[in-house]
Formats: sequence, C-alpha cells, structure tokens
Amino acid sequence: MEKNNSKVILVGAGPGDEELITLKGINAIKNAEVIVYDDLVGENILKNNASKDAELIYVGKRKGKHSHKQEEINQIIIDKAKENKLVVRLKGGDSFVFGRGGEEVLAIKKEGINYEIIPGITSSISVPEIFDIPVTHRKVATSFTVVTGHEAGDKSENEKQVKLEDLNAQTIVILMGISNLENHVKKLLKNPRRNENTPIAILMDGTRDNQRMVKGTLGTIVEIAQKSDVKAPGIIVVGDVVNVLDI
Amino acid sequence: MEKNNSKVILVGAGPGDEELITLKGINAIKNAEVIVYDDLVGENILKNNASKDAELIYVGKRKGKHSHKQEEINQIIIDKAKENKLVVRLKGGDSFVFGRGGEEVLAIKKEGINYEIIPGITSSISVPEIFDIPVTHRKVATSFTVVTGHEAGDKSENEKQVKLEDLNAQTIVILMGISNLENHVKKLLKNPRRNENTPIAILMDGTRDNQRMVKGTLGTIVEIAQKSDVKAPGIIVVGDVVNVLDI
Ligand SMILES: C[S@@+](CC[C@H](N)C(=O)[O-])C[C@H]1O[C@@H](n2cnc3c(N)ncnc32)[C@H](O)[C@@H]1O
Ligand SMILES: C[S@@+](CC[C@H](N)C(=O)[O-])C[C@H]1O[C@@H](n2cnc3c(N)ncnc32)[C@H](O)[C@@H]1O
Repeated sequence: MEKNNSKVILVGAGPGDEELITLKGINAIKNAEVIVYDDLVGENILKNNASKDAELIYVGKRKGKHSHKQEEINQIIIDKAKENKLVVRLKGGDSFVFGRGGEEVLAIKKEGINYEIIPGITSSISVPEIFDIPVTHRKVATSFTVVTGHEAGDKSENEKQVKLEDLNAQTIVILMGISNLENHVKKLLKNPRRNENTPIAILMDGTRDNQRMVKGTLGTIVEIAQKSDVKAPGIIVVGDVVNVLDI
Repeated sequence: MEKNNSKVILVGAGPGDEELITLKGINAIKNAEVIVYDDLVGENILKNNASKDAELIYVGKRKGKHSHKQEEINQIIIDKAKENKLVVRLKGGDSFVFGRGGEEVLAIKKEGINYEIIPGITSSISVPEIFDIPVTHRKVATSFTVVTGHEAGDKSENEKQVKLEDLNAQTIVILMGISNLENHVKKLLKNPRRNENTPIAILMDGTRDNQRMVKGTLGTIVEIAQKSDVKAPGIIVVGDVVNVLDI
C-alpha cells in the first residue's frame, strides 16, 4: 500500500512566545514533513519541535530577501502536498486574523487536497492582555473591533472597506497601523465616541523578551511615539480599557 | 526558609478541545496547587493534567448548583493565594474576552498578590475558524467586531454601551446571543451595510465532538434556527465571510 500523507495543516503559531502555541499545533509541527513558515513565527518553535528530516521553507518578507507573492506561497503548499507530504503551514498569531489563511484554504480546497485548521493565539487579543489591557471589561467595553491599519493596495478595489472613523466599538485594536499612526489618530478623533483624552497604547514585540509599551491619549500619542522611537510592527489599542486595570 | 508560592495565574483554557490550550497553560495547570475553574472548560484538560493533590474548585453555573457571584469567586482566589498556594484560575476561551478576567485581575492587584496572565484560544475567532469561516478575508472583511448579545443587567448602568445596529465592521461575532436571536437580527438589519441577504451562521459546541453549524441569511435565520433546534451557548457570525470559503 502506498502511503498517502497528502494533507495541509494550517497552524497558528501565536504571538511569539514559544509556549503560546497550542498542544495541537505542536503535535502537527512534530509530524510535519514540510513546514512552510512566515515572519513573526517564534524562532524556537521550529528549532525545538520540527523533525530534523522536515523540509523548512521560509516564505516571509525578511529584508533583502525575495518576498513571495501569495500565489507563489499557495503553489508551494499545493506542490508539496501533491508529493504526498504532510505539510504544515505555520503563521504568526492566528491564520484567520489578517493572515491570509482564508486565501490559502481556498487554493487548497480548489485542488481537492485534505486540510485542517488549528487555531492560534492571535496577537490582537493576547498582546494587549500581556500588558494588562483587557479588550472587554464590564461596564467599560462590551465590544471590541480588530482592524487593519494597512491601507495600501486594495482599498480602491474594496467598496465595502470600513473607515476607521466609523468604527463604534468601545475598544479598537489596530494591527499593522504604526507607520500610519498620525493619520489613524486623526480619523479616530472624527468619531464622537472618542476625543483628545481617549486612552491609547502602542505595543511592540509582545510576549518577546524585548516587549515594550507606550501609552498616551489621542491628543498626545503622536508626539510621545516620536520621542519613544516607536517602530512597526506593533499593535495599537484605543479605548478606556487601556487604563482600566491600573490601580 | 518558608516557601512562598503565593501567585495567581489566569489561564485561558480554549474553546473546548483539550488540545487547544497552550503549552504555557498546561504547564501552569500541572504545577497548580489550587485550580478554580468555570463552565466551558474542556473536562479532559483538568482530568489529564491537574496534579492529583491539587484542590479543584468549581465556580461555574451548572444547573441546580449554587451559582457563585463574581465577588465570591474573587474572594476564593484571594483566600487561596493568601494561604501561600499557587492558584490557577482556569476560564473558557480567553480570560479577557467576556470572561470577567479583568475584574479578577483588579481584585488580585488590590491585594498586592503576584499574578500572571496566560492567553487562551478565544471561541470568538477559533470556533468560526473550525467551521471554515475566517473573521477577516482580503477584499471581504478588513475588520471584525466581537460583541456580547447578553443585554440583561448592566445596560442601563452603561451609557457607553454600543448598539448592535451601530456596529459597522464587515464581520460581526456575537457571543451569548442565541437566546435573543430574533431581536439581534432586527437590530443588525437596521444598519445600511446589512440586508435580508447578509449571510449569518450559528455555531454550537465548537471544537467538541457534537459541534454543529446552522447557516442562513438575516432574512431566513430566525425560522431556520427554530426548525433546527438551535440552543445556547453558541456563537453567531454575520457577514460575507460566512460563505467566503465555500466552493
Ligand atoms: C499580518 S498581521 C498578522 C496577525 C496575526 N495573524 C495574528 O493573529 O496575530 C501582522 C501584524 O500583527 C501584529 N503583531 C503580530 N505579532 C505581534 C507581537 N508579538 N507584538 C506586537 N504586534 C504583533 C502587528 O500589528 C503586525 O503588523
Ligand atoms: C462568557 S462567554 C466567554 C467567552 C470566552 N472567554 C472565550 O474567549 O471564548 C461564553 C460564550 O462564549 C461562546 N462560546 C464559548 N465556547 C464556545 C464553543 N465551544 N462553541 C460555541 N460557542 C462558544 C458562547 O457564545 C458562550 O455563550
């Protein structure tokens, strides 16, 4: 009998800390014959768990290296699966939170390849959490919105794109928003629920050794960010939850 | 030297599947002297990992049993920590997504007790994911909002509470919303971004053996839910992402 491992498992690797991946995710990595991985995947997760025979394929955007287009990544995954390999596709955080996991699942499905999705700890909730910021809190925030601050590219193609100023949840979490901070702050201030005193925090390298937080208000954060050498990638959290656990 | 374990670790247990907890969470459970746990915590997580000497304290709302008030739970945690115990507070999903984890952290902080927070896989993202529904998807959803559908209690006390009809993100995930489905659907339809044809899914017992999904549109779901014996607890997902991975 011919073995047929042919399967793709999308695994969310979590926000960086190598212990913030699930048991199920670790087991998938241990069994994988091919691992296709991104930036923002904790280095030790692969080093400590991948089989020494596994083929590791990096498809991230590290400086100076060729950066893969999504179609190329899809093709690599499909080609490896068609070689009857057990392929793990390892992504930072959770695959379905701005991870383009959905596009990969679609491509895999169209080829009729078996797949499984293993959720990961998304940075959008866990990184604020590690800094004592709860995205929800009784009487303070009964809803939170996670949004991308990366507006380049398909904005014009997407009529339905929501404007930052129209987001009404009490907590707003912006991913990929640091390089455009000033612009985002202006838009956030256009919503009557927010004003110059609304708390905001910027969180960098969350759950890693060099993690760092900068806090301010919508009125002060742009200046504070400049002085504190705030750099992408990082997460922006807006709303009263930012200070709700301070005593 | 006296030992001083005195510490509280909040651990997110994930959505139910016993392998959807983090390595860090499992390690905390293994070391715990006291575990204070809720409903919606996968049964096998405790059975397979807690030390046989650990004291297990159930503080959930199982039928027929006394249901603990939040203040009582806080007090149990504090009392046990003050006995120099390593206390794990184990909650379903992630502690900071409608888990009242923030309130517990505040109570612990006020007593000057050491604490740590270990993020969990929230049902709000992972349960849709398991059913092939990505909360974000390029050109379809660049933002998602997670909101509680449980409106009893502190609505009047919370002036800032956001109305469901005002939520503009392309994907809306409602937790604790099933018992009030009809009402929620009416409100969702008041937002011009949505109409009778907007897809909606109801997800029950996600990541467990008996998991079940019911799909429809804002126009049809109330009738479908009645016919399909939809029951709380479960998650409601609204928006085009509901069908985006169907081929
Ligand atoms: C392409 S998105 C992927 C998000 C990922 N799928 C998740 O669920 O966390 C990358 C963005 O996530 C955020 N991010 C991811 N890991 C982070 C961390 N450890 N600390 C701060 N921000 C992080 C940053 O905003 C970064 O630009
Ligand atoms: C009090 S909230 C706690 C949420 C939890 N902290 C989290 O992050 O998943 C409980 C609600 O979560 C949702 N929920 C939790 N686990 C679920 C599962 N396995 N399947 C479907 N819904 C679930 C239901 O809406 C339920 O009423």
